[in-house]
Amino acid sequence: MNVKANGTPVRVALMGFGTVGQSVARILCSGEMPGVQLTHIFNRDVERKRVDWVPASVTWTDNADDIVSADVSIVIEVVGGIRPAYDWVKGALQSGKSVVTANKQLMAHHGAELLDIARAKGLEVRFEASVAGGIPVLRALQEGLAGDRLVEVRGILNGTCAYILSRMESESISFADALAAAQKAGYAEADPSEDLDGADAAAKLAIIAAVGLRRPVRVGDIATKSIRPIESVDFMYARELGCTIRQVARASAEDNGEVFAAVRPALVPLSSAFGRVTGSQNLVTVRGVFGGETSFSGSGAGGSPTAVAVVSDVLSIANAGSRPPAAAEPTVYHKVKGDFVAPHYVRFTVNDKPGILASITAAYAKFGINIEGVLQLPKFKRDRLPFVTTLEECPESVLERALAEVAKSDYHVVAPLALPIFG
Amino acid sequence: MNVKANGTPVRVALMGFGTVGQSVARILCSGEMPGVQLTHIFNRDVERKRVDWVPASVTWTDNADDIVSADVSIVIEVVGGIRPAYDWVKGALQSGKSVVTANKQLMAHHGAELLDIARAKGLEVRFEASVAGGIPVLRALQEGLAGDRLVEVRGILNGTCAYILSRMESESISFADALAAAQKAGYAEADPSEDLDGADAAAKLAIIAAVGLRRPVRVGDIATKSIRPIESVDFMYARELGCTIRQVARASAEDNGEVFAAVRPALVPLSSAFGRVTGSQNLVTVRGVFGGETSFSGSGAGGSPTAVAVVSDVLSIANAGSRPPAAAEPTVYHKVKGDFVAPHYVRFTVNDKPGILASITAAYAKFGINIEGVLQLPKFKRDRLPFVTTLEECPESVLERALAEVAKSDYHVVAPLALPIFG
Repeated sequence: MNVKANGTPVRVALMGFGTVGQSVARILCSGEMPGVQLTHIFNRDVERKRVDWVPASVTWTDNADDIVSADVSIVIEVVGGIRPAYDWVKGALQSGKSVVTANKQLMAHHGAELLDIARAKGLEVRFEASVAGGIPVLRALQEGLAGDRLVEVRGILNGTCAYILSRMESESISFADALAAAQKAGYAEADPSEDLDGADAAAKLAIIAAVGLRRPVRVGDIATKSIRPIESVDFMYARELGCTIRQVARASAEDNGEVFAAVRPALVPLSSAFGRVTGSQNLVTVRGVFGGETSFSGSGAGGSPTAVAVVSDVLSIANAGSRPPAAAEPTVYHKVKGDFVAPHYVRFTVNDKPGILASITAAYAKFGINIEGVLQLPKFKRDRLPFVTTLEECPESVLERALAEVAKSDYHVVAPLALPIFG
Repeated sequence: MNVKANGTPVRVALMGFGTVGQSVARILCSGEMPGVQLTHIFNRDVERKRVDWVPASVTWTDNADDIVSADVSIVIEVVGGIRPAYDWVKGALQSGKSVVTANKQLMAHHGAELLDIARAKGLEVRFEASVAGGIPVLRALQEGLAGDRLVEVRGILNGTCAYILSRMESESISFADALAAAQKAGYAEADPSEDLDGADAAAKLAIIAAVGLRRPVRVGDIATKSIRPIESVDFMYARELGCTIRQVARASAEDNGEVFAAVRPALVPLSSAFGRVTGSQNLVTVRGVFGGETSFSGSGAGGSPTAVAVVSDVLSIANAGSRPPAAAEPTVYHKVKGDFVAPHYVRFTVNDKPGILASITAAYAKFGINIEGVLQLPKFKRDRLPFVTTLEECPESVLERALAEVAKSDYHVVAPLALPIFG
């Protein structure tokens, strides 16, 4: 069904004509990809979207049913969001079309079901563009490192957070100012919650865990923490420790069948690959039992790199032999835990008075947490004094219990901020 | 031929039981790869190679003909060197077996012919492990970025040079001491010429140009320069310029159909991905007309990462549908030029006397080369005084003519060293 027969180009429909969709159309209409032919474009309010550089033979429509019933082999979905994209993708598969999507939320929440439908019909669903934009990391994990057993994935998967945190680092500006700059530069949306609070990275992490670690997890089971409480002073203290701060998504396959998975801001060494990520770059590092560590980095966002990933998936389906239908394998979701065992950085902001450090260290001692050091930089006001304790390795859940005890005291001006330190 | 039928594992023979071969066997015998079965191991003097962790069902042989005639679908070649590996691989293909090889010299010199034979017989030759060890870069270029048109590749492709240059940088030691350290640590062979003088990186660059830029070139046409003339003082001067020194392999597809390709030591910014490569890491950065830059980094050498690449290729063949024989496409080799147009660093080492700078600047002026700056660090002896001129962009060939004129003077203690500066 999907194979080019005697040199006829494979017919392709495009759903969504926003930034990514337009970049996809540009590549498909560039003359560089003779094996595939764009035949349909769907968008709401399609009349205002029409452009003159698309061949006249292309059918424009604002009716999704036109795509589901079209005479095409491959449907590209770059509309985004779970509904109605889910219904359209499912409909396309059920009517015998393979699908290429850039939709991380769709694949994180419904990927297992959609892949099962495709398998049962001998079709394909490909979704390289849903993770890390222009970096072909899913293919690398699934095929390029197939000869290894991957046990850990760490990544900087959200370009908005990467942009904001590296601006805070390099310019010593506040979170609010960095967010405003990101919005102005087009790196953050008007409602940036999905990026800042970790849902975007969690969806990507769920996809990577399923493909790379071969352990599907429910995206809702992944613990996330927001980068919003990070302050400029945290970068000053991090630098004292040879570190900076990044939003890190991390998953590992545990021997007991569970998956450790979490997304949160963390201290990373300035000298590490994670510390060196700047701008809106993405980074994925994987560790296998045989081959050790491999890293992939590149543009994580933007219409063009994402469009390249989409078109590469289209070509991969167009060039592959058709595959026989296969029985759907029931997806087993793995149990997820998110309790980091790591050294920690804890920043307190207090109205200074005698006995504060004593009360904090007493709480740590009560929970068996060892202090590695205390850092207090000069020149802060006494009524809003930030200082930091660094702690030896302990489970995050234990630290949270200790901090809940500390939080009862009246000297806090800002709630304590705990960040794991990744070596 | 290569497909698993009804769950029977695909039979695989291994030629070469050195470091990589043993790592390959370890993975194939680990129980992690149920789809493939190691059935034969070939090595010279095979009796001294036998190990007890390989299943008793495996046939050990020191006769290559036993492999060529064996009942296997895939032959893995990790013997290395062009002959006799070429004859064995060709023989395996002619007797209907697909081939996975880690042999860069074989693929750089005979890849086009071997791929043609495979295509005509509906077989495969895969060679991910021949380039950048554990980083699945060929697959990424060929498939993951298929939706782009790649126009430039830059890489740190030789782990020995990367190790030596980063030791010289971090420890301020001489080339000779760094080479000795590399040999002691197992990162350089007793005869390291192929690594140091660029032939190893040139072979990998030829493979990447054919796969990524889709422009096959003859490896002998790629201009190479050795890293041997680099001295400790060059790192001091490079640092003054915000740079360090790495062996860089670079190829680009020119609009006129030619390929620019060269391997040489170059100055790279300390803050760039190239400047940050340490140890024996590899790095490949590609640029496409649609998607911009993407980078891949990881362990470039070592038995285990290379073995993972080999086994991944084996699985890829084992899992793919068989393909129909196809007409061999005659390989068109592209014309290669290696004349860098770049800013340059030129270090002179002179027995100081009046008029030296005047004679050098006069030669530059004669050839229309603009000087950007002159650097002379204090505390060197006057009878062996190193100083540096930095030059604005000019073709390397023009600079060489100017330096040939300068070289006629009698004040040189060491021949001038010219390195391009990559931005």
